[in-house]
Amino acid sequence: MSLPEQILSGDRLALARLLTQIENEEPQGIAALGDLYQHTGSAHIVGVTGAPGTGKSTLVNHLALALRQVETGDPDGNRVAVIAVDPSSPFSGGAILGDRIRMRDLAGDSGIFIRSMASRGALGGLARTTHSVSQALDAAGYSWILIETVGAGQAEVDVASTAHTTIVIDAPGMGDDIQANKAGILEIADILVVNKADLPGAENTRRMLELALHMAPPVTTDASSDSAIPPWTPPVIGTIATQGEGIQELKAVILEHKNYLDRSGSGDARERARIEHHLEALLREKLLNRFLAEDSSQKFNEMVALILDRKQSPYEAVKQLLTTS
Amino acid sequence: MSLPEQILSGDRLALARLLTQIENEEPQGIAALGDLYQHTGSAHIVGVTGAPGTGKSTLVNHLALALRQVETGDPDGNRVAVIAVDPSSPFSGGAILGDRIRMRDLAGDSGIFIRSMASRGALGGLARTTHSVSQALDAAGYSWILIETVGAGQAEVDVASTAHTTIVIDAPGMGDDIQANKAGILEIADILVVNKADLPGAENTRRMLELALHMAPPVTTDASSDSAIPPWTPPVIGTIATQGEGIQELKAVILEHKNYLDRSGSGDARERARIEHHLEALLREKLLNRFLAEDSSQKFNEMVALILDRKQSPYEAVKQLLTTS
Repeated sequence: MSLPEQILSGDRLALARLLTQIENEEPQGIAALGDLYQHTGSAHIVGVTGAPGTGKSTLVNHLALALRQVETGDPDGNRVAVIAVDPSSPFSGGAILGDRIRMRDLAGDSGIFIRSMASRGALGGLARTTHSVSQALDAAGYSWILIETVGAGQAEVDVASTAHTTIVIDAPGMGDDIQANKAGILEIADILVVNKADLPGAENTRRMLELALHMAPPVTTDASSDSAIPPWTPPVIGTIATQGEGIQELKAVILEHKNYLDRSGSGDARERARIEHHLEALLREKLLNRFLAEDSSQKFNEMVALILDRKQSPYEAVKQLLTTS
Repeated sequence: MSLPEQILSGDRLALARLLTQIENEEPQGIAALGDLYQHTGSAHIVGVTGAPGTGKSTLVNHLALALRQVETGDPDGNRVAVIAVDPSSPFSGGAILGDRIRMRDLAGDSGIFIRSMASRGALGGLARTTHSVSQALDAAGYSWILIETVGAGQAEVDVASTAHTTIVIDAPGMGDDIQANKAGILEIADILVVNKADLPGAENTRRMLELALHMAPPVTTDASSDSAIPPWTPPVIGTIATQGEGIQELKAVILEHKNYLDRSGSGDARERARIEHHLEALLREKLLNRFLAEDSSQKFNEMVALILDRKQSPYEAVKQLLTTS
């Protein structure tokens, strides 16, 4: 059996092997992904982002279990994959002293697949490979793909560009910064979660989020959406992830958002934007590689020397490199 | 006077105008930056990164004041610029309910220049423009440039690729995650700070960082460093930023690291890596723009349609786009 066939038949080891090949951008893996691509398009990708300390990993754990719950009678009906892009996540190998116990709940279930990805490496490389890894998991038959990522800033924008539904997690007691932070993050949130809802200050955190939402409503990128259907308003959900509280409500809201994307047509618009984004990212990298491979590599080094001597500015250097190529 | 001349003469408004042009990647600004480039190379760029809630902005504020302190007798001797890449920073406009008071200490001093940059926008765009903005501030005569950034992950790696000295801030009470997080972040830290050193748990945070440092020593990218000089070991500094405590010690350690970079020759190696990185980022973007401008734009759209229909995988599409171009 070929690698794609093995993956379509449910071979987890083959899948793990493919994901490694994709992460390393090996030709073999890229070829296999090409063969598998026709089998993609049925998974729903959920991005989960939040600062360290918000209880994100615990929430992802419980959410994976909740989404896995089989209502269809088919035990393979709701297979769930978790991609941990966060080096601090207990799902990833990065945790030195972290709590590894949490993920044990998931590890025994063959319908759940966990993959951790380091967030090191070349600029943009992570978003590129995360997208490809999602596709492989999609083809392998995982109907839910949870992508866990950390922090605030570029990483979240990247998650949003890959996910169908983006969840932003906050928690009380994270300091003023976090609240203000939401100004940037709200743009990408489809669902907001206030985790640790039992802690003092949770109600305050929720009010801050709702106020921020009110002041800076999400930018609607859903261009082709049906005007008869009102735009999606990100709901704010309270959870206590450590006790599993609020998880079923969160699951219900995710299903609602999935349904909204289907009904309104904005799911299609997002899918198109996602593909354009991915294609551009791939092109950017390939064009650079091709450029440096064709005898421009020496010219590149000459330009670096000139820039080092302040005899040439980087922008000028790029212009010259491009005109002579 | 031309814009570059205005900037060299110390015109702050002209500088602000140029930075806007650079952020928007306007041809006029790029040209001006080209003229200014020969005047760059004397600033020391300090990246400051840390999760929300670590007191990063307060620390940057005090550090800017400390670096500004003029020991040379020349009141313009130590001009300091702050670039806030963090949307949650009170320096940036993103703060909705944040504490804006902190930055007032700095605002009255003409030797201090503050610039906030939103972290939205295209993938990699931020790192690209942050580098260019640093160059403009360098040419404008700021001898210290502090770049404040948030979170964990890609953003930090990008800061490290721009800065001469990278400071990573932690604080007690940030949860388990944060500690484990350091595994990834330690790779880029030249100096570690435990802020809020008066809070319970500070000693524990410090021990965790030292343990993590011990277990995963920073990857030395300082290839050309003089072997007679021992490699730099990131020190761990305790501070109480709200009271200005530990700031002078931090300043001293930054000066030590600056001195180390000069003596060991690894400053030169880093400068080369930084320039290569910047040049590649610029090339990546320009090559894509050129590619899409030359009648490939229609082919690009055709490929997007094929990918949407799952008739073509993105990697295959890129291969086809590149062979026919």
